[in-house]
Amino acid sequence: MRIIFIGFGVVGQSLARIFQKKKKTLTQLYGIDPQTVAVVDSKGAAIDSKGLDLDEILKMKDSNKSVSEHREVGNPQKTGIDVIREMDAEVMFETTPTNILDSSKGIINIESALKAGINVVTTNKGPLARAMPSLMEMAAYNEVELRFSGTVGGGTPFLKLAKQCLQGDRIITLKGILNGTTNYILTQMADEQISMEKALTDAQQLGYAESDPTNDLDGIDAAVKVVILANWIMNRSVSIDNVEIEGIRQVSQKDIKEAKKAREVIKLLGSVDEELSVKPQRISEKDALNVKNTLNAVSFTTEHSGTITLTGKGAGGVETASAALRDLIDIKNNLSIK
Amino acid sequence: MRIIFIGFGVVGQSLARIFQKKKKTLTQLYGIDPQTVAVVDSKGAAIDSKGLDLDEILKMKDSNKSVSEHREVGNPQKTGIDVIREMDAEVMFETTPTNILDSSKGIINIESALKAGINVVTTNKGPLARAMPSLMEMAAYNEVELRFSGTVGGGTPFLKLAKQCLQGDRIITLKGILNGTTNYILTQMADEQISMEKALTDAQQLGYAESDPTNDLDGIDAAVKVVILANWIMNRSVSIDNVEIEGIRQVSQKDIKEAKKAREVIKLLGSVDEELSVKPQRISEKDALNVKNTLNAVSFTTEHSGTITLTGKGAGGVETASAALRDLIDIKNNLSIK
Repeated sequence: MRIIFIGFGVVGQSLARIFQKKKKTLTQLYGIDPQTVAVVDSKGAAIDSKGLDLDEILKMKDSNKSVSEHREVGNPQKTGIDVIREMDAEVMFETTPTNILDSSKGIINIESALKAGINVVTTNKGPLARAMPSLMEMAAYNEVELRFSGTVGGGTPFLKLAKQCLQGDRIITLKGILNGTTNYILTQMADEQISMEKALTDAQQLGYAESDPTNDLDGIDAAVKVVILANWIMNRSVSIDNVEIEGIRQVSQKDIKEAKKAREVIKLLGSVDEELSVKPQRISEKDALNVKNTLNAVSFTTEHSGTITLTGKGAGGVETASAALRDLIDIKNNLSIK
Repeated sequence: MRIIFIGFGVVGQSLARIFQKKKKTLTQLYGIDPQTVAVVDSKGAAIDSKGLDLDEILKMKDSNKSVSEHREVGNPQKTGIDVIREMDAEVMFETTPTNILDSSKGIINIESALKAGINVVTTNKGPLARAMPSLMEMAAYNEVELRFSGTVGGGTPFLKLAKQCLQGDRIITLKGILNGTTNYILTQMADEQISMEKALTDAQQLGYAESDPTNDLDGIDAAVKVVILANWIMNRSVSIDNVEIEGIRQVSQKDIKEAKKAREVIKLLGSVDEELSVKPQRISEKDALNVKNTLNAVSFTTEHSGTITLTGKGAGGVETASAALRDLIDIKNNLSIK
């Protein structure tokens, strides 16, 4: 199976490491023998139609080099689009960083691959925030797969659980904590009685929040995940413009203390009901969604099986890579059936 | 798809109701057109190779009649074994009540069906407690499926999540709350500061505990689920004799209060690690496994995706029936591939 990596940061590298470490398992259990024919990072590409030596490529990244500096197969002139157009491959991993305001580059990468008949696994939420319905249509039209398990919940299989473990039943509504940074901040504000500013600074120092925390605090990141859940699981056809969004900036210590008196907690919840929304809400301390710190959790209310809640780490390079690997295995299985 | 019901209590009837209510969905989405050719309850059978009128059969049960009293197709002489031997069918649902001490009847039903080339879906834990490895072997040998999603967690898809949503990853250990009755009792003892006797009486009045609560209180029910999880998910080959079992009878208010001081709670946890065990354990109040009342929850610790916890109702007729339906859909999909 010939593979192209577009973007080769923590997630891409983690996936490449899993390929190397789990070679035997992948072949024996799943019939997958990944051959990486191109890796593109922000400075260029390394290309070899016979298959790159991933150990070597990973070592270059460890020494902070671009893959394009490779003596034999490096090429600083080649962009992702060039590679997609020129190389034969079965699967492209789009693992460039999410940029929600400007997702055009990711969209072009994904569209180009789909049109070229290449299956796509993306961990980049940006393109899905704006263009998910059209990208899904394009995949269907070109008879290839577009998968994105790693975009919601890191390695926690929210999308897969809902899509594959509840056949014969029907999910009526879903709601959940879809952003670890804000959950950490709200948890710390409640447990340590500190201000939002202090909790944010702590989160930044621990690497849980970015230096510009806008997407997290204003609910944008959670809203993108609501869009993905709604389209993929509930068969809607929506973009981020359809989500009513309120972040956590207005949540005060006073609000949190009032909730506590009623044995409740304030959480930033995304929900897919008749309306799509992201907003701070009070839930019972006993609610299964009352998970702490950076954990994510989603409750699915079903017709026959009651309410089912899945909880886990919502982020992480290896975790997100493991979700992308699951997508690859799904694609392999679908290819085999065809 | 021709179907036999052995046992037709709450779970069997719920499933039959779903068949009637969801006829269209089952055909259109899953290509399943269930034709029930036999229903066996404790007093005999109703048999029609052209397909029984399930509405009529359900009405008889509503009026507390045995299906064997049916004017045209009822037969009080026929047992489950007779039906399995005489009828052509693709799937048998074994939904007789679980009897862990004497599971021989359930085992004979399942073995007979497997040997006759009939796929089996069971919601009866008894046979799996004692004979799961040999039953699984027998299914494989006869090239049919043996499925049992409803035996662990009612409608909450613990088995399916672990088996189908984590490909490419590896579950290293798992532990969880696998018995709703004892979780209800421990929750009430902690929250309401009442004695175990009082909590048990409450549970019995609410229908959460049986009049003989031995299997729940002594950890037997949880241990059977540990066996099922270990065999199915972790590829062990074990029976209930391999589980170290300690129930909750020794848990006192003093223990619970001591735990509370340390911000911990006492839960009856089943775990599959190097050893298999069921015993009361202290966990942090913040642990994702700290779910209340009759809820069940299982945490899976994986190699790459961190710890993932699934929570939901652990019992219920409709819920368990919905799990059995999922098994049916899986079997249908496997048949189609063959």
